Amino acid sequence: MTHEAGIPLGIRFKLLSDTPQDSAAQVVNEVVVGDYRDLDTLREFARGCDVITFDHEHVPTEHLKALEADGIPVRPGPEALVHAQDKGVMRAKLDAIGVPCPRHRIVRDPADVAAFAAEGAVEGDGFPVVLKTVRGGYDGKGVWVVDSVEEAAEPFRAGVPVLAEEKVDFVRELAANVVRSPHGQAVAYPVVESQQVNGVCDTVIAPAPDLDESLALRAEEMALGIAKELGVVGHLAVELFQTRDGRILVNELAMRPHNSGHWTMDGAITSQFANHVRAVLDLPLGDPRPRAKWTVMVNVLGGDFPDMYSAYLHCMARDPQLKIHMYGKDVKPGRKVGHVNTYGDDLDDVLERARHAAGYLRGTITE
Amino acid sequence: MTHEAGIPLGIRFKLLSDTPQDSAAQVVNEVVVGDYRDLDTLREFARGCDVITFDHEHVPTEHLKALEADGIPVRPGPEALVHAQDKGVMRAKLDAIGVPCPRHRIVRDPADVAAFAAEGAVEGDGFPVVLKTVRGGYDGKGVWVVDSVEEAAEPFRAGVPVLAEEKVDFVRELAANVVRSPHGQAVAYPVVESQQVNGVCDTVIAPAPDLDESLALRAEEMALGIAKELGVVGHLAVELFQTRDGRILVNELAMRPHNSGHWTMDGAITSQFANHVRAVLDLPLGDPRPRAKWTVMVNVLGGDFPDMYSAYLHCMARDPQLKIHMYGKDVKPGRKVGHVNTYGDDLDDVLERARHAAGYLRGTITE
Repeated sequence: MTHEAGIPLGIRFKLLSDTPQDSAAQVVNEVVVGDYRDLDTLREFARGCDVITFDHEHVPTEHLKALEADGIPVRPGPEALVHAQDKGVMRAKLDAIGVPCPRHRIVRDPADVAAFAAEGAVEGDGFPVVLKTVRGGYDGKGVWVVDSVEEAAEPFRAGVPVLAEEKVDFVRELAANVVRSPHGQAVAYPVVESQQVNGVCDTVIAPAPDLDESLALRAEEMALGIAKELGVVGHLAVELFQTRDGRILVNELAMRPHNSGHWTMDGAITSQFANHVRAVLDLPLGDPRPRAKWTVMVNVLGGDFPDMYSAYLHCMARDPQLKIHMYGKDVKPGRKVGHVNTYGDDLDDVLERARHAAGYLRGTITE
Repeated sequence: MTHEAGIPLGIRFKLLSDTPQDSAAQVVNEVVVGDYRDLDTLREFARGCDVITFDHEHVPTEHLKALEADGIPVRPGPEALVHAQDKGVMRAKLDAIGVPCPRHRIVRDPADVAAFAAEGAVEGDGFPVVLKTVRGGYDGKGVWVVDSVEEAAEPFRAGVPVLAEEKVDFVRELAANVVRSPHGQAVAYPVVESQQVNGVCDTVIAPAPDLDESLALRAEEMALGIAKELGVVGHLAVELFQTRDGRILVNELAMRPHNSGHWTMDGAITSQFANHVRAVLDLPLGDPRPRAKWTVMVNVLGGDFPDMYSAYLHCMARDPQLKIHMYGKDVKPGRKVGHVNTYGDDLDDVLERARHAAGYLRGTITE
């Protein structure tokens, strides 16, 4: 999708891909298959590149520093990106700059978890508590909600540092997406509501319905502030909890075009991908405002049948305004294989159309 | 741009390209460099393709028939495409199905041209007359406006059949863009005004300002009728003259996404490229309606300085809503190297923004 956004600007991508089957490798002209964890591979790949960016955050921080030392611009740079790679570093930094987060602490063992829980207890033992490995998790992986000290053993088995967090009493999840360029220009997309199913993003509504204007503004300012304080270049997604008592707490950070911004491809004047490309190239950023009153994105998860392309006939005939974005991935149950966007003036209608299409493509709706 | 539109549907293109530097060859994953005039090259290329389509009309008709005989679907098929390849065949067919055209005749020599001119004369000798080689012309190439029998010699030198046409007294040029799928579904984009400079398309305004509703409807119906009668599959652009006396005459046909439809990339719910891809795959077509009150496209022609990417800084900073589409071509004076789209409620503003950006990218505006 970043390649798609680069084409109109005449930007040529060179792609380092794990396999020739990766989504981007199917559509980019110049593909190198290699391991992003191997510094020699990265150095060889980076030769001749004007600038490096990512579609995931898993390239080791020290390798990115080595590329920078070689004189290759890396955007976002490792000093910023580490906050999206390591949840411990992220929480410490957000504390330091005064950004509200769930109560949290790095814990060493289950006893430590119990102590953390007890400290926050209004009544009882303070469980449940959320435990997260500080590195490597996504889409609910590397995250546990534990109800007792016994259950708290599992997350420590991998030998990775573990972060304990209070289980926030939230009414919904929001996301504030911003883009920042090297010389400091920044734009904020409207704050969206993000609905999760089994820890995986399912539906995004832009803008977040019935969101108090001052709360929306505070969320945008918070995201812009984080981008500035962390020196982010490119897209920054700030996942937020809206609490029952009207606060906004930061859940996660992502420093790349993000699922909560996929609606911008059809719903904003400038998509998150186009603005990420502009930021990485230090070009002036595009207008982030919405083009429709409501835009809804629903993820398409792999279902039980492998060929979802036959479902195009139904979906396109039923809704000529539907925007389908499939990633060319092999269909596996539960895997994000695409998304659909719909937009219009009537939120109920826009939601129904997106949900119907995503369900039909997955195979959970058959009529 | 067709590749860009295919990515979201998970459609993988294999490209036959003249050179590795062609615009599409820079961004498509699977590129074969070869000569589209060579049947063996085409046959080798076509092996394993589900369907073949084009971004120009110059593949020899008989080669396309050979591919069809090999069992490869060609869309649009040669029986339709010949009407966009050969202006003589096109005029004969449009006459046969009752579509209004400029007065015309295949001419054999300058004396024949003089006779043709005299037949249409209201006074004097009937010159000027328009002469066109029946094959191979585009963007004003292969077209002559001759004022005398002496000037009429030039077009015959290539040894290609020549079509004579009356020089139409038109108030403006319009274009009706439609898309048709193999099972006969068709959609019509709003009729646009197309402004030419030196025989090359410069500006397109969608929809055509102050166009009488009944005339717009007649133009759309004419284009849909031509698509049906000619068996077109994919995008059909019908270039039209709006005459001083209120008639609409067909100037040219193009059977592919067309310059007069580039505005749809940012101005319509479904772009001409997306609908061409859908039609070629016999998928239901997308909604062709506009997303803004006015959309303006202005072509970027190559100017005197080779690096127009430095102009991005000015253009993007001046107009954060500007949509730039550059083709990655080497800049040569007068060559179409990209286009810009703008949209909004105020036509004067939308026109000014597009013209400023295109002029700045070309280098004719420097402040």
